Amino acid sequence: MGYSIQPADGKLGILIPGLGAVATTFIAGVAAINKGISKPVGSLTQMGNIRLGKRTENRYPLIKDFVPLTNLKDIVFGGWDVYEDNVFEAASNAKVLEPMLLHAVKEELETIKPMKAVFDKNFIKNLDGTHIKEQTHRRELANAVLEDIAQFKETNNCDRLVMVWCGSTEKYIEHCEIFESIDAFENALDADDRRISPSMIYAYAAIKSRVPFANGAPNLTVDIPALVELAQQLEVPIAGKDFKTGQTLMKTIVAPGLAARALGVKGWFSSNILGNRDGLVLDDPENFKTKEVSKLSVLEEILNADINPELYQELYHKVRINYYPPHGDNKESWDNIDIFGWLGYPMQIKINFLCRDSILAAPIVLDLALFLDLAHRAGMSGIQEWLSFYLKSPQTAPGLKPEHDIFKQLIKLQNTLRHIMGEDLITHLGLDYYQELVDNL
Amino acid sequence: MGYSIQPADGKLGILIPGLGAVATTFIAGVAAINKGISKPVGSLTQMGNIRLGKRTENRYPLIKDFVPLTNLKDIVFGGWDVYEDNVFEAASNAKVLEPMLLHAVKEELETIKPMKAVFDKNFIKNLDGTHIKEQTHRRELANAVLEDIAQFKETNNCDRLVMVWCGSTEKYIEHCEIFESIDAFENALDADDRRISPSMIYAYAAIKSRVPFANGAPNLTVDIPALVELAQQLEVPIAGKDFKTGQTLMKTIVAPGLAARALGVKGWFSSNILGNRDGLVLDDPENFKTKEVSKLSVLEEILNADINPELYQELYHKVRINYYPPHGDNKESWDNIDIFGWLGYPMQIKINFLCRDSILAAPIVLDLALFLDLAHRAGMSGIQEWLSFYLKSPQTAPGLKPEHDIFKQLIKLQNTLRHIMGEDLITHLGLDYYQELVDNL
Amino acid sequence: MGYSIQPADGKLGILIPGLGAVATTFIAGVAAINKGISKPVGSLTQMGNIRLGKRTENRYPLIKDFVPLTNLKDIVFGGWDVYEDNVFEAASNAKVLEPMLLHAVKEELETIKPMKAVFDKNFIKNLDGTHIKEQTHRRELANAVLEDIAQFKETNNCDRLVMVWCGSTEKYIEHCEIFESIDAFENALDADDRRISPSMIYAYAAIKSRVPFANGAPNLTVDIPALVELAQQLEVPIAGKDFKTGQTLMKTIVAPGLAARALGVKGWFSSNILGNRDGLVLDDPENFKTKEVSKLSVLEEILNADINPELYQELYHKVRINYYPPHGDNKESWDNIDIFGWLGYPMQIKINFLCRDSILAAPIVLDLALFLDLAHRAGMSGIQEWLSFYLKSPQTAPGLKPEHDIFKQLIKLQNTLRHIMGEDLITHLGLDYYQELVDNL
Amino acid sequence: MGYSIQPADGKLGILIPGLGAVATTFIAGVAAINKGISKPVGSLTQMGNIRLGKRTENRYPLIKDFVPLTNLKDIVFGGWDVYEDNVFEAASNAKVLEPMLLHAVKEELETIKPMKAVFDKNFIKNLDGTHIKEQTHRRELANAVLEDIAQFKETNNCDRLVMVWCGSTEKYIEHCEIFESIDAFENALDADDRRISPSMIYAYAAIKSRVPFANGAPNLTVDIPALVELAQQLEVPIAGKDFKTGQTLMKTIVAPGLAARALGVKGWFSSNILGNRDGLVLDDPENFKTKEVSKLSVLEEILNADINPELYQELYHKVRINYYPPHGDNKESWDNIDIFGWLGYPMQIKINFLCRDSILAAPIVLDLALFLDLAHRAGMSGIQEWLSFYLKSPQTAPGLKPEHDIFKQLIKLQNTLRHIMGEDLITHLGLDYYQELVDNL
Ligand SMILES: NC(=O)c1ccc[n+]([C@@H]2O[C@H](COP(=O)([O-])OP(=O)(O)OC[C@H]3O[C@@H](n4cnc5c(N)ncnc54)[C@H](O)[C@@H]3O)[C@@H](O)[C@H]2O)c1
Ligand SMILES: NC(=O)c1ccc[n+]([C@@H]2O[C@H](COP(=O)([O-])OP(=O)(O)OC[C@H]3O[C@@H](n4cnc5c(N)ncnc54)[C@H](O)[C@@H]3O)[C@@H](O)[C@H]2O)c1
Ligand SMILES: NC(=O)c1ccc[n+]([C@@H]2O[C@H](COP(=O)([O-])OP(=O)(O)OC[C@H]3O[C@@H](n4cnc5c(N)ncnc54)[C@H](O)[C@@H]3O)[C@@H](O)[C@H]2O)c1
Ligand SMILES: NC(=O)c1ccc[n+]([C@@H]2O[C@H](COP(=O)([O-])OP(=O)(O)OC[C@H]3O[C@@H](n4cnc5c(N)ncnc54)[C@H](O)[C@@H]3O)[C@@H](O)[C@H]2O)c1
Ligand code: NA
Ligand code: NA
Repeated sequence: MGYSIQPADGKLGILIPGLGAVATTFIAGVAAINKGISKPVGSLTQMGNIRLGKRTENRYPLIKDFVPLTNLKDIVFGGWDVYEDNVFEAASNAKVLEPMLLHAVKEELETIKPMKAVFDKNFIKNLDGTHIKEQTHRRELANAVLEDIAQFKETNNCDRLVMVWCGSTEKYIEHCEIFESIDAFENALDADDRRISPSMIYAYAAIKSRVPFANGAPNLTVDIPALVELAQQLEVPIAGKDFKTGQTLMKTIVAPGLAARALGVKGWFSSNILGNRDGLVLDDPENFKTKEVSKLSVLEEILNADINPELYQELYHKVRINYYPPHGDNKESWDNIDIFGWLGYPMQIKINFLCRDSILAAPIVLDLALFLDLAHRAGMSGIQEWLSFYLKSPQTAPGLKPEHDIFKQLIKLQNTLRHIMGEDLITHLGLDYYQELVDNL
Repeated sequence: MGYSIQPADGKLGILIPGLGAVATTFIAGVAAINKGISKPVGSLTQMGNIRLGKRTENRYPLIKDFVPLTNLKDIVFGGWDVYEDNVFEAASNAKVLEPMLLHAVKEELETIKPMKAVFDKNFIKNLDGTHIKEQTHRRELANAVLEDIAQFKETNNCDRLVMVWCGSTEKYIEHCEIFESIDAFENALDADDRRISPSMIYAYAAIKSRVPFANGAPNLTVDIPALVELAQQLEVPIAGKDFKTGQTLMKTIVAPGLAARALGVKGWFSSNILGNRDGLVLDDPENFKTKEVSKLSVLEEILNADINPELYQELYHKVRINYYPPHGDNKESWDNIDIFGWLGYPMQIKINFLCRDSILAAPIVLDLALFLDLAHRAGMSGIQEWLSFYLKSPQTAPGLKPEHDIFKQLIKLQNTLRHIMGEDLITHLGLDYYQELVDNL
Repeated sequence: MGYSIQPADGKLGILIPGLGAVATTFIAGVAAINKGISKPVGSLTQMGNIRLGKRTENRYPLIKDFVPLTNLKDIVFGGWDVYEDNVFEAASNAKVLEPMLLHAVKEELETIKPMKAVFDKNFIKNLDGTHIKEQTHRRELANAVLEDIAQFKETNNCDRLVMVWCGSTEKYIEHCEIFESIDAFENALDADDRRISPSMIYAYAAIKSRVPFANGAPNLTVDIPALVELAQQLEVPIAGKDFKTGQTLMKTIVAPGLAARALGVKGWFSSNILGNRDGLVLDDPENFKTKEVSKLSVLEEILNADINPELYQELYHKVRINYYPPHGDNKESWDNIDIFGWLGYPMQIKINFLCRDSILAAPIVLDLALFLDLAHRAGMSGIQEWLSFYLKSPQTAPGLKPEHDIFKQLIKLQNTLRHIMGEDLITHLGLDYYQELVDNL
Repeated sequence: MGYSIQPADGKLGILIPGLGAVATTFIAGVAAINKGISKPVGSLTQMGNIRLGKRTENRYPLIKDFVPLTNLKDIVFGGWDVYEDNVFEAASNAKVLEPMLLHAVKEELETIKPMKAVFDKNFIKNLDGTHIKEQTHRRELANAVLEDIAQFKETNNCDRLVMVWCGSTEKYIEHCEIFESIDAFENALDADDRRISPSMIYAYAAIKSRVPFANGAPNLTVDIPALVELAQQLEVPIAGKDFKTGQTLMKTIVAPGLAARALGVKGWFSSNILGNRDGLVLDDPENFKTKEVSKLSVLEEILNADINPELYQELYHKVRINYYPPHGDNKESWDNIDIFGWLGYPMQIKINFLCRDSILAAPIVLDLALFLDLAHRAGMSGIQEWLSFYLKSPQTAPGLKPEHDIFKQLIKLQNTLRHIMGEDLITHLGLDYYQELVDNL
């Protein structure tokens, strides 16, 4: 008895503020996949399976064959950036994908040109773009984005839209009263209050346009009561924040494993080296702060010292990001984990992840876009906690702590899909059919 | 509506064939814990919590407060070994625990002296013990162990017993007809068939005595149809095989994380260096073969190429164990994992685990013993698949593939406990109370 | 035809400002060695050999049997610290050596009590000691140290003295005019100029007392023209600065190897985690700056971009020190080295050094003390460039660049010893005797 | 007063038995360098500098500007292989260099076609080539190679030739009487004695043709008294054996550093993973044995337990090579080094080298060829010990132990060059000019 879901007919427009490394890797990838050159590895919606029924039934369909998702061929792309490079040029500069691959989709990428950005240097010191909107008043900027959205939809003949923030990390800001309610927020917009960040203006315009919104960066953006309220009013699904990739991904894989075995953790030191534009922006302490807060929270929740003080109250957790140009987009992380076991004896785990930042993030953009669109068509709105799986700092309903354990997040995601499609939830208990089998021996 | 469970009154005897590094670390540890000197870190039964009810209920009792387990103070220990060292001497030789700790429990350990072992050098070439039973006929040896068990129970005034094999890894053997049924097995015993390994004789005697049996080594032992059949007839719970520690533990943590994100895996190279007696035995290719088979299977199941050939059919998996005396019991593993993501781009993960083998294994001995005893008291019998969590090559009912994903194993274990105690199973769906909260905003 | 060297008769007093981790590990070690409990591993003077003559002569005496050094039994220790703990207490707090070892030499250590320190919080913010001299005027402080030195010598009946700075790293300061000549320096002392750091006052007093001085920290101290001039006038040998241990030691081993093979280096990222008091002091950016300058210079000199721009001009070198309490004195470094070879193809080297900071530094204190004393007795004075081997930022005569390649440093050290003892220098040419051998075939 | 050296006029032919990964990377590289596309990084003869005179003279010419070497433009290539692929095809299969680079030199490579090989499957089981000489008698095979050499020289109008073995590693063989003298060897050739390996036949033919010969593999080949004798008689320089790259290169860099500081070494565990044809051949235990012997010797010599038993007599050294196809030519090594310092305290170093085997080996082929040719022109003959720098198991005159310390090897190489050019040898003493400087202060 699942939900009734609108079909995924017609075109889906994916609108992206920030056409940098992640966004262009995503767009170029979809183009290459549509040409049959490459595979959408890392995307659950495209390559992931889901088990249905009992283990003995052996039903493992692809997720895309199980739930009605938009076909990759029906996607069109748009976006904004403070630089006027088209997506081919931006992708070339990002140096993530090989020139040969990019050339194979050059035509598709060249036609995608950024709209002028909403930008405020006060939020990102290390950028110097000039392709920015002339308006300076916050309200006028919001209107301009509303206009951009409407026009894009029409020009591209889209049936539906979603927006995913792939812009740079904005500087760290605290919650404050103008973010507390939609009324306060709109008043602040009208008053051109400079505490409203550019990313919030995009998010506001998206929701107002009934366009689902996801935030891939650690800045607050849609993670404020005002915009959550608006999303509920207008029945728009939202999700945030900060794509979960690289080191944090590994952390939310490994930490649950240690906790599963009741192993103690005394220290966790995490260092990163990366040399792309994201790294340059994060080299500014104010912007790093935003990222740091996002990265630090995951361990506390998974290794819950409240519940298990003897194992986790001593935990010392430190995260460093180092701008190191020789590595470009090939972010590399090194973790040292100080654990202890039986009778308190110490052990150490070192993890060295030679990853590629944008390669890990691109499929997340795709999945968030497709799942938000699905949620919208299924009548789900507000914070989509089941998409926590993709996010470093998942938004939750007030009063609930975020779940960071990637395996619990996955079960929640899968059981949500099963639930909306009317399939049985999986508990991994298995005593029932197991006993049957045993009895039949 | 849980099961009706016999109370854990009186003494529980834990009988251990193989009083080597693991067993003595376990025994010394329990003694130290009972003296209040140390903590049973790494033991789920002692330090693990379990969530009950909805997330919002905030109920996370310790497992030992939730299910009726034997108190550590009510345990007595016994065992067999081919060397006649008492447990204090054997623990000192093993060089796992610090001399100061061992001296604090010297008295308790010295009184535990091994019974003479059932031994056949043909199964373990690299050992030369002399503390072995005079009998040579398989049936007589089985009778001798039956006698040992009965006498131990009486002498030590035990209410209940469990047996956990902590002996060395026996050489690799194939399934054969004498293992197919309990009749065939007993005939082979009578015929003194040398294909029956020493560990099987202990297991047979245990089950015959209605003593639950767990196998911590990778040799077949209780993982043959004959002994499964006997266990069912006599309603004895059993579990096997091979304690899941170190590198394999990490593997069953990390591999599910990669699979969760639909990341491809092209190669996984695992090297180990260790220098204890276990390492010496495994330096013989016939014995290493047994371990290798056990260690190789885990990835195939988790990264299921049948279901997901594009991601996993290329997987090349290699495991090496290197005897390296300078490290003693401080086993160290190094893994190189070749993964690929979006559009097939390659990345690498390197994991260096500076672990302590016996420190990780000791709490598993404890948990297996206590949970098998619980299962027995709860009327559960045969293969206890919910204990897969602790094992590298979990036994399953015929026709079922083992589950290696440690997080699914944990859910199964926890839901089994919830089930026998009559609590709701957890699905991590959370849409219900979540919607409630959302509606109340 | 070597030098004429005064014999090493009588007692040698080693005076140490800063009785922290390094100094107490050094002192406790010498005591343990003198008791026959331990070995002076890592000390070239005690355990190193030197080859003499041709390779075919097979002469490899211990250095201590080759040059006339002070016997370890003839050493007495003294020092200053801002905390009043005696050496036993300080060593216990430092947690470098095991309690059992420390107890074996407790008596010897307890009697060594620090004299009151010359201290100025302005140079080290993160310390709060109270065991400091009452005087505040720079000149009076210098006089007080002169007095301390004289009194120590008399009380302990010493024949000779040397001083080694083992105090915390002072904040970064630039060269300035008061350091330019001994006249300017003494005028500044008289004027109580606060740019003179505490460590300079100790160094000044030492040289004035004709006591050789070595500086184990990266602060300028004796590395100013004023004190070099004074040392030459009074014929006192000096050496500085910053003990070469851990990561930098590895760097000056590995970098010469890469350069030897004409391999290019594009990037070198170095991270450190440590949790002792040294780490705490270095957590202050002003003090870290001093260390950073010292650590960064080594690569530039070894991988000389002036001589070899195609291989080294791109080099990006970054060093990080992270205060991480869980590791205590067990400093751990992680290096990522991006190299390139034939046709520019990239390769990477990762080095993870699980070291013990003070264990590596202690023997250096010993060697510097004994070699400075030897140099003094041999009539050598001023900067002892042949001791560069032990130092991260070796002092050199003006106009000469420091040599950082540890192998060239070693040859210089060894050839210096051969030289003063009248032995042939070694060139490793070997064509002569080689040809002889060949001819005789 | 250097040697008198014939000029490097005319063409130099480099003849290579074994046109596999190393050889084709070398040849393609020289072609690309001659086209100005790439740089000969890693080659001392092309990019290395040499210091001349005193440090203060600042003379650091390129080696190729200091000694008269053959210009890269004057080299022609030839070779033999058991497969008939031309060098373009073989280089493409080897997958070391990028297709784009290979295409840029396709024309040059295609014209180089292997001559038929001298092959005996008994020495290399894992190869199945068919491009082999029809002759089977050892003497006839030798004559055929003599003929190949003469014809190549004429056809290509070469002034001089050198030969470098880049063929696969042959199986391990022991020294035996037929290798003891050139007479015994030639008798064995006549008797078609199958203990003579194919590589020896090439080496014999080379020396007979007065062509200098170097051996890049660990098989004996030219490292037998018979061929050394012949080389001396005919005044031909020779060098062997086994190119020093990757892990062993790092070992001979790091071990001297540890020894320099009198640090003890208790264990050294070295693991390698590689997936090219070389790896496949070494997967056969008989061939691995040859490599293992070569790789194991280096530590023993550098960490000389005879001279320093307290530091090195316990050393446990183990080397593993694992065939791991996912990595192709990107050999990766992982080393764990167990060291101890002051008072015996243990520390660990882990080195993970993500290298490219053939990229490191190719410039060695070039240097050995050019330096052997130089030696020949300078009238030097027999074993060229100064080329030890490039070799894992350097040949030495009987009675001399090989020197493995790469820094001593480098000094020997450089001082040899200085010697033959009549420049002063460098001792790094520096007291002379240093004192001058000091006096002038
Ligand atoms: N694995 C990952 O790559 C990863 C993971 C988590 C989060 N993120 C976040 O995703 C975001 C994008 O990462 P990236 O690597 O593509 O960075 P990037 O610097 O390559 O791209 C960001 C782009 O955003 C543009 N931009 C900045 N402010 C803008 C504005 N106000 N309007 C429009 N465009 C704007 C910039 O000009 C730039 O082109 C960053 O915030 C990053 O922190 C990335
Ligand atoms: N982390 C771990 O330590 C770990 C993990 C998984 C499995 N295991 C397995 O657990 C077992 C024990 O490991 P360990 O480190 O204690 O090894 P160990 O060598 O220290 O101890 C094994 C003991 O078994 C004894 N033994 C051998 N055959 C016997 C027999 N027939 N009867 C009685 N005693 C016998 C030996 O004498 C020895 O004392 C091994 O099989 C090992 O492979 C250990
Ligand atoms: N491997 C190493 O440990 C290593 C390597 C290179 C350099 N160093 C340097 O050696 C020094 C000592 O290192 P540590 O680990 O022993 O540090 P530590 O903090 O344990 O000891 C330093 C001691 O100096 C004392 N001190 C500070 N200022 C003083 C003053 N003005 N007079 C007298 N005492 C004073 C402090 O109270 C402290 O006890 C540091 O500067 C460190 O940077 C250490
Ligand atoms: N870093 C390195 O690559 C390195 C380092 C040290 C030594 N080596 C040695 O160099 C040699 C070449 O390495 P590679 O990676 O190029 O290996 P490869 O397998 O790619 O090439 C070896 C070639 O030799 C050919 N061959 C074998 N026997 C022959 C014979 N009798 N006559 C003519 N050709 C023959 C094979 O067919 C093959 O093409 C190997 O012995 C290897 O052990 C390589
Ligand atoms: Na860092
Ligand atoms: Na290995």
